[in-house]
Amino acid sequence: MRFVSHFFATTYISATRSKTLLPVSASLRLLSSAVFATSIPLPMAASEESLRLALTEKQAAVDAQADAVRNLKARSGTPQAEIEAAVDALNNLKLEAGAAARRLQAALSSNGGSAAGSREAFRQAVVNTLERRLFYIPSFKIYRGVAGLYDYGPPGCAVKSNVLAFWRQHFVLEENMLEVDCPCVTPEIVLKASGHVDKFTDLMVKDEKTGMCYRADHLLKDFCKEKLEKDLTLSSEKVTEFKHVIAVLDDLSAEQLGAKLKEYGITAPDTKNPLSDPYPFNLMFQTSIGPSGLSPGFMRPETAQGIFVNFKDLYYYNGKKLPFAAAQIGQAFRNEISPRQGLLRVREFTLAEIEHFVDPDDKSHPKFSDVAELEFLMFPRGEQLAGKSASPMILGKAVSKGIVNNETLGYFIGRVYLFLTHLGIDKDRLRFRQHLPNEMAHYAADCWDAEIECSYGWIECVGIADRSAYDLQAHSEKSGIPLIAHEIFSEAREVEKLVIVPSKKELGLEFKGDQKMVVEALEAMNEKEAMDMKTTLESKGEVDFHVCTLGKTVSIKKNMISIGLEKKKEHQRVFTPSVIEPSFGIGRIIYCLFEHSFYTRPSKAEDEQLNVFSFPPLVAPIKCTVLPLVKIQKFDDVAKVIAKSLTAAGISHIMDTTGTSIGKRYARTDEIGVPFAITVDSTTSITIRERDSKQQIRVSIDEAALVMKEIIDGQSTWGDMVWRYPTHSATHAEDELME
Amino acid sequence: MRFVSHFFATTYISATRSKTLLPVSASLRLLSSAVFATSIPLPMAASEESLRLALTEKQAAVDAQADAVRNLKARSGTPQAEIEAAVDALNNLKLEAGAAARRLQAALSSNGGSAAGSREAFRQAVVNTLERRLFYIPSFKIYRGVAGLYDYGPPGCAVKSNVLAFWRQHFVLEENMLEVDCPCVTPEIVLKASGHVDKFTDLMVKDEKTGMCYRADHLLKDFCKEKLEKDLTLSSEKVTEFKHVIAVLDDLSAEQLGAKLKEYGITAPDTKNPLSDPYPFNLMFQTSIGPSGLSPGFMRPETAQGIFVNFKDLYYYNGKKLPFAAAQIGQAFRNEISPRQGLLRVREFTLAEIEHFVDPDDKSHPKFSDVAELEFLMFPRGEQLAGKSASPMILGKAVSKGIVNNETLGYFIGRVYLFLTHLGIDKDRLRFRQHLPNEMAHYAADCWDAEIECSYGWIECVGIADRSAYDLQAHSEKSGIPLIAHEIFSEAREVEKLVIVPSKKELGLEFKGDQKMVVEALEAMNEKEAMDMKTTLESKGEVDFHVCTLGKTVSIKKNMISIGLEKKKEHQRVFTPSVIEPSFGIGRIIYCLFEHSFYTRPSKAEDEQLNVFSFPPLVAPIKCTVLPLVKIQKFDDVAKVIAKSLTAAGISHIMDTTGTSIGKRYARTDEIGVPFAITVDSTTSITIRERDSKQQIRVSIDEAALVMKEIIDGQSTWGDMVWRYPTHSATHAEDELME
Repeated sequence: MRFVSHFFATTYISATRSKTLLPVSASLRLLSSAVFATSIPLPMAASEESLRLALTEKQAAVDAQADAVRNLKARSGTPQAEIEAAVDALNNLKLEAGAAARRLQAALSSNGGSAAGSREAFRQAVVNTLERRLFYIPSFKIYRGVAGLYDYGPPGCAVKSNVLAFWRQHFVLEENMLEVDCPCVTPEIVLKASGHVDKFTDLMVKDEKTGMCYRADHLLKDFCKEKLEKDLTLSSEKVTEFKHVIAVLDDLSAEQLGAKLKEYGITAPDTKNPLSDPYPFNLMFQTSIGPSGLSPGFMRPETAQGIFVNFKDLYYYNGKKLPFAAAQIGQAFRNEISPRQGLLRVREFTLAEIEHFVDPDDKSHPKFSDVAELEFLMFPRGEQLAGKSASPMILGKAVSKGIVNNETLGYFIGRVYLFLTHLGIDKDRLRFRQHLPNEMAHYAADCWDAEIECSYGWIECVGIADRSAYDLQAHSEKSGIPLIAHEIFSEAREVEKLVIVPSKKELGLEFKGDQKMVVEALEAMNEKEAMDMKTTLESKGEVDFHVCTLGKTVSIKKNMISIGLEKKKEHQRVFTPSVIEPSFGIGRIIYCLFEHSFYTRPSKAEDEQLNVFSFPPLVAPIKCTVLPLVKIQKFDDVAKVIAKSLTAAGISHIMDTTGTSIGKRYARTDEIGVPFAITVDSTTSITIRERDSKQQIRVSIDEAALVMKEIIDGQSTWGDMVWRYPTHSATHAEDELME
Repeated sequence: MRFVSHFFATTYISATRSKTLLPVSASLRLLSSAVFATSIPLPMAASEESLRLALTEKQAAVDAQADAVRNLKARSGTPQAEIEAAVDALNNLKLEAGAAARRLQAALSSNGGSAAGSREAFRQAVVNTLERRLFYIPSFKIYRGVAGLYDYGPPGCAVKSNVLAFWRQHFVLEENMLEVDCPCVTPEIVLKASGHVDKFTDLMVKDEKTGMCYRADHLLKDFCKEKLEKDLTLSSEKVTEFKHVIAVLDDLSAEQLGAKLKEYGITAPDTKNPLSDPYPFNLMFQTSIGPSGLSPGFMRPETAQGIFVNFKDLYYYNGKKLPFAAAQIGQAFRNEISPRQGLLRVREFTLAEIEHFVDPDDKSHPKFSDVAELEFLMFPRGEQLAGKSASPMILGKAVSKGIVNNETLGYFIGRVYLFLTHLGIDKDRLRFRQHLPNEMAHYAADCWDAEIECSYGWIECVGIADRSAYDLQAHSEKSGIPLIAHEIFSEAREVEKLVIVPSKKELGLEFKGDQKMVVEALEAMNEKEAMDMKTTLESKGEVDFHVCTLGKTVSIKKNMISIGLEKKKEHQRVFTPSVIEPSFGIGRIIYCLFEHSFYTRPSKAEDEQLNVFSFPPLVAPIKCTVLPLVKIQKFDDVAKVIAKSLTAAGISHIMDTTGTSIGKRYARTDEIGVPFAITVDSTTSITIRERDSKQQIRVSIDEAALVMKEIIDGQSTWGDMVWRYPTHSATHAEDELME
């Protein structure tokens, strides 16, 4: 039984997982990788543990003292003073218990509560700005929308198209990749071969009365989190248990999940009705190809399969040379049970995937030295299991120490790092986390996720996996078309080949009707088995041999078989290439980029906070605004001339000729991340303002578009321009300009 | 009842079509626009008619003479000489009849037959090259593919991405359009509102034994074409009938189509089994959104609806100003019954659509003068109905004469012309054909298709329609959200408003229980009806008035009603914008571009024909090849330096370091349309060869990338470079270089 693991999707559990940390689920199946879940059981933090203990002790003291007071009161003749003293003591203990509860609450909050609150507030500020300025729009909003579907509005669409253009430049062009473009509609057989038809599922429960569906693991996780955060009286055993459940959530079978839901008495969140047992729901959108209704098809859950099925043609196209990479950008689809987390978990999204095909015996990369010196946050398996956090490592060392499996994988990790930071992802909130053994498919050699930290936590945005030969082999088997490569030797090589010649005559005499089975079993021996048999036969003259197909062990004598090694000349080696797959969730990268680029600053009058997106020019949706300082004809005319020259230079821009104050017009474009503003305040020259520094330079009208083009093409920086042209301080300028 | 008409799809038949040329089908429905079909009944060509007549006459003469010979032979005593003379005459007549048949056959062939044969051969040559060089690949080929699904392989994908980048530059950037990006998965309600759920259908028939499905109109058309081409004995009535059937194919109802299939005895093409009656098959791929199975969804058949449902937000985003345009590039899906015509009719394709929203009272365009002088082939309705062909017209005149409905529509026609010819579409095989009245939806103001001629005939590649307010109104009605615009008057305008005040007291006395109905009917009068009533009441004192809801006519007296016009001030006008929609079938444009760019030329040795794609640099998949003349280290090193500088300049290129002859290497890149080859034949300078002229220039190594960039960015032409740098004639150079 084989499984595939693919980005975004889903961790398929390996069939040979017995060595992993966590319990192997009874039924092997595909589980969805929860973004927050780390698969290591978390020990309770020391402070939390002692605080819970303190609270329990205080509470016990309160209970004891309350008993004492009750006893004193019940006993006739107890002096009033004694009773009053006991009540005072009880009240003091109650105060102390209250304080202990508050301390515990505070500690829990700093893990989730109030920090979560401020993260939530930050996210709300970002999301409000994004929605108000149409970076995105809930799809089909006038029909009250569809969960998990979003449109990119004009600025969002421009950011996306800039990100994709840079992706093409950085990967496809730079590495001479073979880009392909395959349909989304995919026939069943392809996704049967890849494993998606059988295993691309999440476990679902239904409200038994309303039929409303929920993800079983989400309900269990929500219950445990709520208990941990809100219930201060939890015993330390219970705390450990709930934390363990969250940690192993991804590994629970349908039966185990169902049992936990029952044990905790979890009901439907909206109605409190009982829930069905969990059962797998396939996440692919199903459809039917052609009019007959007899050809089931699916909307692809990833773009990769389109590349794998074309391997043979692409290999020929590349002159039958390895390594080479194919790439594809396109839509992928997941019919999520109940989408959450806004733009991060959606039902349709853009993937950009690379399949780099390489000789499994040689995973070196000629350009590895270009990235070997890079240093960034890495989070290898060992550190995760030791409960440490990610730390800066030099990529070259990580590969040479064997932490990263091979140079090619390392090369792509480095290239992904450069790609993301170039876009504007904060390098301090970007880490490369290695998959734990239980996260990886059994055939995968190694796998690293580029994770970006945002208000939802660390989000998997790029998966970089060495998937070995799995995918090509799966399609070879299913289609009957060999998806293989050849290494032609410059001169023929001598190899030793095992030769097994059963003596049919002797075997026939001995085994009669069973002869055929025995012959086949003997011929199927591998080299080690055969050579062991040879040795035994030579020393003892006979050997016990188990014939599976007969279900019994027979005795083989020396005259029944000849085993030997022969020398042969071979002119080529035939093998299935390994594939190294960097897979980019474009929407997730863009959302994280929005969060990393967002900040607020006070307005001039300090009466409000203004929003800014600090996009680099490369990704900014619009590169500059053209603003006549005041609404007069001659400034409008100059603005039009400049707009025309910007269009000719291919620079996206908008013109703002409203009568609004210049400060407000700046604020409007800062809020959609326009990096430069060209203000027309004379008929010979203009000022260019940079968004974040608010610095301004004075440039002649003829040069304006050229200056913009140089910066946007990356030939010069704003700093170069500040040095080259006369400046005035932003504050000074804005004072002058502000109405 | 309303219908929509959309590009690629499908002509929806208007409900109020009684004035059109063609019979109105009994059941109104949506028909697929057959690419070849013109909707005008074609008169039989004069020569064909006379040839058919001549053949019939000769055949009759043969028959008569044969009778005569038979009679002579039967009559005893006829002299042998007389018989022989009659037989000679018969043989001569037979020869003449044979010649007449051949002439007719030849005439039919030039319409379809042998010309079709050579078109077919040309297409085969193009398609073979396209498939061999992986411009495209039948999708899921190793699983024997799926009809109507194709992958773009590396060069095809690069061409597509260049076409789309230029589209963005030419339309979105140049016109400051608002680009959006909406999902393919669409809930039912949206496509119910647009009319697709009910009417996006083709008529299908099933083989009654095997269940195989066919398009009913295709079978009927194939039958008629076959008859016309192959059956030389058709009567002229039959010829006219079959031609008429082909012409009106798109307008036949299910019943009419079924009757024709029965009348002609048409059976399933593969099995000759009987066919079912035709019935509508919805062409959308259906699926289900979410796990409940209760939310039907479809893969969008066009991208336009995503824009319409966002109109309100986009209008606000644009500062509540009209006109503005929104644009979208994305996948669209049609579950074709039986896809034919290779890349032209597929089940999934990329559309690029523009929705330009405009005040219905002002469809002028400020930039119309930029395109008014353009002259190209136009094919207005009148010319089509008169049986003429397309002829060159000046766009400005077409608009001023009212042939094109308005300036905005005209502006887009001009911009589409510039777009297509810039890509490399041959302007002599491009025409703009106006829709005939029966092709247009009843609400459409005007519609023109950019049609490109290729081996399949004239293919609709871009539809440019003025769709009036239909789409926004449909979604307003369905969603309850008004999708409207406001014109704020600079100063309030005085308007006259009709005021009708029925006297309830008098009416009550007269009509008792019917009073309410009468009051409502009176209040519902339009201005003309009310003013007519006022006049009559003033002259005669009473008037007959029909109350529909009562089903009777009553008499209204002067004292029962007061009617007058009051002056009111209005501050704004509220209206539903019109939309002008240019919609581009990217795959069709690319396929036509392939055909228009393809040519062959003899190899040096004149022993074979070499294939060339003459793509302009703008769309060429790869801009240049770098080839060391011979395989030596120092040339390889120079090639690497040049490759690096090309990458830095963002110029896509490939390196060909195989030992193959330079001529063969040139031929290899000519075949995928690489416009320039940089041949490394020294360590200081290189030669650059242009693909079509084979001209070569000598350029220093440092300048190579700059020269390429200047040409590819369109700042200079090859001609400029030939003038600037030393050249040698292609022949001379290739002689030198050829091994």
